[in-house]
Amino acid sequence: MGGDFGPPVTVPAAVKALRRHPGLRLYLVGDQQKITPFLQGLAADEQQRLEVLHTEMVISNQARPDSILRSYRESSMYLTVDLVRQGVADACVSAGNTGALLLAGRHLLKTIPGIDRPAIIATLPATRAGGYTYLLDVGANTRCNASELCQYALMGSVLASSLTDKQRPRVALLNIGEEEHKGTPAIRETSRLLNASPDIEYIGFVEGNQLFDGKADVIVCDGFTGNITIKTSAGAVEVLHRVMRRGLTRRWYYRLFGWAVSPLLKDLWKELQPARYNGATLVGLQGIIVKSHGNARQDGFARAIEHALYQVADDVPARIQARMSSLAPVAGDDVQPTSTLH
Amino acid sequence: MGGDFGPPVTVPAAVKALRRHPGLRLYLVGDQQKITPFLQGLAADEQQRLEVLHTEMVISNQARPDSILRSYRESSMYLTVDLVRQGVADACVSAGNTGALLLAGRHLLKTIPGIDRPAIIATLPATRAGGYTYLLDVGANTRCNASELCQYALMGSVLASSLTDKQRPRVALLNIGEEEHKGTPAIRETSRLLNASPDIEYIGFVEGNQLFDGKADVIVCDGFTGNITIKTSAGAVEVLHRVMRRGLTRRWYYRLFGWAVSPLLKDLWKELQPARYNGATLVGLQGIIVKSHGNARQDGFARAIEHALYQVADDVPARIQARMSSLAPVAGDDVQPTSTLH
Repeated sequence: MGGDFGPPVTVPAAVKALRRHPGLRLYLVGDQQKITPFLQGLAADEQQRLEVLHTEMVISNQARPDSILRSYRESSMYLTVDLVRQGVADACVSAGNTGALLLAGRHLLKTIPGIDRPAIIATLPATRAGGYTYLLDVGANTRCNASELCQYALMGSVLASSLTDKQRPRVALLNIGEEEHKGTPAIRETSRLLNASPDIEYIGFVEGNQLFDGKADVIVCDGFTGNITIKTSAGAVEVLHRVMRRGLTRRWYYRLFGWAVSPLLKDLWKELQPARYNGATLVGLQGIIVKSHGNARQDGFARAIEHALYQVADDVPARIQARMSSLAPVAGDDVQPTSTLH
Repeated sequence: MGGDFGPPVTVPAAVKALRRHPGLRLYLVGDQQKITPFLQGLAADEQQRLEVLHTEMVISNQARPDSILRSYRESSMYLTVDLVRQGVADACVSAGNTGALLLAGRHLLKTIPGIDRPAIIATLPATRAGGYTYLLDVGANTRCNASELCQYALMGSVLASSLTDKQRPRVALLNIGEEEHKGTPAIRETSRLLNASPDIEYIGFVEGNQLFDGKADVIVCDGFTGNITIKTSAGAVEVLHRVMRRGLTRRWYYRLFGWAVSPLLKDLWKELQPARYNGATLVGLQGIIVKSHGNARQDGFARAIEHALYQVADDVPARIQARMSSLAPVAGDDVQPTSTLH
């Protein structure tokens, strides 16, 4: 039911994913009346792999996340996460209210032992390397201490090796300089700890302008910084698109050019719009939850479902748990964590 | 002597500014032998308005900032800031080591009474509005408390009204959401204080994707966030440029069109590359220091000199001081400040 568009986008996307993956079974949780109109023309086999679980209650994007536990236990989101808790479903995919999804995840699935708080991990295009870079946290926890940042490094590393073919993904810390003395005490302490963690391929600090050059497979930062970062890059790309289109109307041969290269331009924005790399994952929970962007269209939401599939195949939560012991011990935490959820 | 190129860029830029502004007098502080080759062909009038102060010592970009006070008192940067302290010069312009410049500024000029620490303010293109947005702090102080963020709001507001024709520049806080409960305790407290400061036209929170839409004239954040933000947007624009050029070689008619529109493309990158908006200013000191980007070319460095001129004309430090009393009192600071300089 979630996202900017609801069932008109999520249900056809679900059908698309169902057709692409013959081993996939889906529960669609939400208002049956709004869902079934988009389920016309399914083959018998597809119908068998799809089930609608009816509930009318929906958590709006405006709802304060903490209200989910008080008044939204019949909501489609809560019930979906609960299917994972019960073991009925292997993963949950939602385009809804991120804060509520996080809270439902923590409440119902609990974090992996040794993980303090789940993080949200986003996918960035690594244009030079032609691959992807995973950035976390992008909004679950505004401020993080060194111990949490190390947990992010480990979780990002496991997820990256699950979603790509890299055995030892390169992990970097987002900072305001490459020199050792730069950044906050928490970041410097994290750097020291990661250098002492042989299971993590830690490559040092990267700066904001290196986010897209593929230098690192995983980039770690606190949720405040990560959120500003992905929104800023989305904003910069959007502005360029706008200014470019405006510029292309200035002369007749610019307009002609614009028409001739429009397929190229379309590809470009697709390639670079960070928001298009759909399937931000909640990592750190004892269960798989993929958060699709609210403004995702059918392809984007279908991709989010596929992200969930890959994580199920690799059992990412179990792999994170198995590697928890490889982190260097933390001497003492220097920053008190604060959560965006309160 | 500073920046990526030194005198081959800074001296011709200085001459350019001298020619454009007949009331301008300049001291060039540095290695005479490296400066004079670029001073050929000056008119008599221009020669009279320009003086070279010789020193051989230069602070490198790699130097740890704190070493400036120990071992660099004969450096061109230290001597230049000292000219401002002595009242010999009205402003200092440098493309050198930012941390060292900040430290020299604090040590020699001191902060304005009521200002805890100087900030660095950068100029962003506000493409939709066709103007500029000023972002601070972009790297002087990694973490800031509410009281400091309020000081930034006031300083940004004074500088913006000096550099634009706006009487009451709109001031916003950079945050991870627009709702009141979002962000760190320091940001929420700052928002409360700014709402209670009638002299500041506070318009609330903006998110990373709204940096370039001209919604605000001044955007306030801590130095860690600001630094990541400007570097991320520069990185996103650079990536787009690269991917676009690569894309334009894919077909012969793309190449042809690419050639036809190359002036347009050039303008575009100029318009959007945040690093081009040269003249990051140090605000909060009892004196004017403009920091040019290290990679500025002649036009950029000349623009930095002009930024300094405008601030001298308006006596920005005095105007900030005069308005200090208009800030709402701070109840108790919630975040311990940390500096990038140590």
